[in-house]
Amino acid sequence: MANPIDFYFDYSSPYGYFAAMKIDDLAAKNGRSVNWKPILLGAVFKVTGGQPLPTLPLKGPYALRDILRSARFHGLPYQQPSKFPVATQAPARAFYWINDRDPALAKKLAQALYQAYFVQDRDISSPEITADVAATLGLQRDEVLAALNDAAVKDRLKNEVDAAIKLGVFGSPYIVVDGEPFWGIDRFDQIEHWLARGPF
Amino acid sequence: MANPIDFYFDYSSPYGYFAAMKIDDLAAKNGRSVNWKPILLGAVFKVTGGQPLPTLPLKGPYALRDILRSARFHGLPYQQPSKFPVATQAPARAFYWINDRDPALAKKLAQALYQAYFVQDRDISSPEITADVAATLGLQRDEVLAALNDAAVKDRLKNEVDAAIKLGVFGSPYIVVDGEPFWGIDRFDQIEHWLARGPF
Repeated sequence: MANPIDFYFDYSSPYGYFAAMKIDDLAAKNGRSVNWKPILLGAVFKVTGGQPLPTLPLKGPYALRDILRSARFHGLPYQQPSKFPVATQAPARAFYWINDRDPALAKKLAQALYQAYFVQDRDISSPEITADVAATLGLQRDEVLAALNDAAVKDRLKNEVDAAIKLGVFGSPYIVVDGEPFWGIDRFDQIEHWLARGPF
Repeated sequence: MANPIDFYFDYSSPYGYFAAMKIDDLAAKNGRSVNWKPILLGAVFKVTGGQPLPTLPLKGPYALRDILRSARFHGLPYQQPSKFPVATQAPARAFYWINDRDPALAKKLAQALYQAYFVQDRDISSPEITADVAATLGLQRDEVLAALNDAAVKDRLKNEVDAAIKLGVFGSPYIVVDGEPFWGIDRFDQIEHWLARGPF
């Protein structure tokens, strides 16, 4: 099988949510698997000087409109969260904790957390809510809460974020195929072209 | 005929160049005409705090790679200019000066200036070079140079840029269809959907 695709995303990124609902299908159609890698855009922005979308003059109001329209364009349910953006340590730590023993379940959790935030307006920055969402997938609520406070799990996320920044990841979604980086749900057309016909 | 499309662009924007080579075809296929409106991203960035792509940590190096790849993806010739970005008052003034009497010629000039900069690596920030490019389309070189220094032409560009900023234009290309704003060559899929099937 060809190289897996690396998929970097932040749980507070609407475009990351859209990508998360589509990337595995796109990859599978082309004989690829996907490594999911949640990151923290807050840490990235400390390096790049980036700012959350809603705070940007002119671009912020456009982005909120573009997000709603893009959700409709991609046929995905979406409701602008009342608190946006939020810190995403809790969902990201939960992901890596489960991913080591069950990557398929970790992806299901990632999608469920994205839906909790961007469809049901639940504040997944809260460890309690992250644990509630994990519980709907059969995970033990108290085990999840313990993992979120585990120093090893915290270090794991920190190392993943540091490695991503070192690689040049500056946004969400950020996808690497055969060493080639693609930023944004709007590069899915180029990713598809690359997967189907090779480098261009 | 349905409302014309407004197409805002900066002559120093690679994605604006890609859009300029495609937008009239896309519009015509859907029974629309296009008003071209060169702007100055430098003036916009004073309001938004934006920075030229090459200066941005992580995003800058990615952008240069994405631009080259996107040119290949869209089947357009492209050579990274040795000076990038450049000030674009000269080509923008030339455009508005001609546009008032011959919009079709103004579009041809806009495309020729984009090609001069992004294919032939000619520094179109120079009034001399802008006039040289205009001369290849049959315009009088000395008339163009005089127009670039005409206070009325300078005011015209300033007013167009101010009006664009007031409308919320923050990047290039920026396209407005029936009052709906779309930013980027990567929104051409959504623009096409809108033009063909109406608002969504």
